[in-house]
Amino acid sequence: MKIQTECVPCLLKRIIFEAKQSTDDKTLQTKAIRNACKMLSQIYDPNECSAVIATKIHKMVYDTLGDEDPYAELKQTSNRVAESLLPKIEEIIKASDDSLKASMLCSIIGNILDFGIEGSSTNPKMLREVFERIYSERLGYDDYSKLKLHLKKAKRVIIFADNCGEIVFDKVVCRELKKFNPRIFISLVVRGEPIISDATLKDARELNFKEVVDEILTTGCFAIGVDFDRLPFEVEKALKNADLITCKGMANYEAFSETDYKPIVYLLRTKCSAISKSMDIPLNVSVIKLYE
Amino acid sequence: MKIQTECVPCLLKRIIFEAKQSTDDKTLQTKAIRNACKMLSQIYDPNECSAVIATKIHKMVYDTLGDEDPYAELKQTSNRVAESLLPKIEEIIKASDDSLKASMLCSIIGNILDFGIEGSSTNPKMLREVFERIYSERLGYDDYSKLKLHLKKAKRVIIFADNCGEIVFDKVVCRELKKFNPRIFISLVVRGEPIISDATLKDARELNFKEVVDEILTTGCFAIGVDFDRLPFEVEKALKNADLITCKGMANYEAFSETDYKPIVYLLRTKCSAISKSMDIPLNVSVIKLYE
Repeated sequence: MKIQTECVPCLLKRIIFEAKQSTDDKTLQTKAIRNACKMLSQIYDPNECSAVIATKIHKMVYDTLGDEDPYAELKQTSNRVAESLLPKIEEIIKASDDSLKASMLCSIIGNILDFGIEGSSTNPKMLREVFERIYSERLGYDDYSKLKLHLKKAKRVIIFADNCGEIVFDKVVCRELKKFNPRIFISLVVRGEPIISDATLKDARELNFKEVVDEILTTGCFAIGVDFDRLPFEVEKALKNADLITCKGMANYEAFSETDYKPIVYLLRTKCSAISKSMDIPLNVSVIKLYE
Repeated sequence: MKIQTECVPCLLKRIIFEAKQSTDDKTLQTKAIRNACKMLSQIYDPNECSAVIATKIHKMVYDTLGDEDPYAELKQTSNRVAESLLPKIEEIIKASDDSLKASMLCSIIGNILDFGIEGSSTNPKMLREVFERIYSERLGYDDYSKLKLHLKKAKRVIIFADNCGEIVFDKVVCRELKKFNPRIFISLVVRGEPIISDATLKDARELNFKEVVDEILTTGCFAIGVDFDRLPFEVEKALKNADLITCKGMANYEAFSETDYKPIVYLLRTKCSAISKSMDIPLNVSVIKLYE
């Protein structure tokens, strides 16, 4: 996705949020805000991918703050809150007609755990409060039937994870996927370095993902979504060999929508107008959208 | 009010809005956004008044766009929409126990006509749609009884107007004020130059304000709210002689809250968290707040 005008204030909102997460030192917060504005004045370009610009801005702000992971605590809490919801989710899946679809919807709802932007959560606990209401709304865009056909015949699937919290439910999706088609080889890709509230190798290990996937890879670097210029060889190979690419969340959409990788399915919440317009899907709905 | 961190993305949102109001030329829009970011990186300072920073940013963006009044059409429409509501407002005032208070509440509701920021209107017509609901909520902060005591004994009152649309109802307030205390000398102050959707001399003349006030002054320059460093002599005099200063809207609060002028009353909607926190009043309520 090309950066939209509305991405500029939204990105700054997130920068302010992470500066405040990182420090109470107002001088340092001010420095981070000023540096972000300065860099935006230099690199904002409507022809550039939003994820590329966001990566550069966040990198500079992390450096300014001298903080490798301003979201560390929030990420931990997100995982714990999501784990506390697991019994409810297992119940939902058990009671559903299609356990794979139900698990996917749950993990899409987990995608609301996102901080510092409009339409996102103010704290991880809100997931508990809104989960049932959002589940009852079901999917606002539903390519599941087509997706199922792909998954039935797929030998290799690569899944790009997104936020912490959400990743707890992604594990359930992987388990259900293995039940649905035991022959599928699943590659999970998490972020190579801590960036915003996204899951990293640390989370994948803590959550014992090796129980449900065949390999765990990382994007190899600090990047919003995926930086295709710095893609590790293993990920490149897994992408090439995959019969289906599965992307969780908006950042992966922002990055992959600028490439020709197909077939690709996006599982996300449309949390902002830029993504909503780009995907031509209403705002604040749960989405399974397949590009074949 | 000192600029708050959340003012930065909000200000940029408004800049983007006005760039799009002004031109469809994406290159020019981009230039305006970049210039605004650059200037913010230079002048953002938590110890500076929000109105002072906003004035500088808007001035630079108007210059970049080569547009003296990007909101010209919106302002006209706002006045027409407000005028179409006058019969309803006169009915409300007639049916009320206190016609001055009712007129003030109506003009505070007019303050929702504000564009390009969160919590504001998307188009002038929404005023018609929400007017009755917001009127029924009455005041969220009510210093009217104290205000009435000041107005009863006041000889000179100076009123700083805010947005177009809203100013149509301000005229009704002035009329009711004259009825309430015919001895009051009313000075109306509008903006000296077109800035965002604020009323200027053109509006005050078109609306025949001389029927209800004793003098019409302007802030004398391009400024969000009031620039006290460039205040015309007449306004300075009127301010000094006033027994009560009346400020409509958030921009006047942002400017005057950095001064010692008293007694002063603010009639506004708390449309953003920065103002709401600064005034210690909930968000999105109608306010009459007096500082004695």
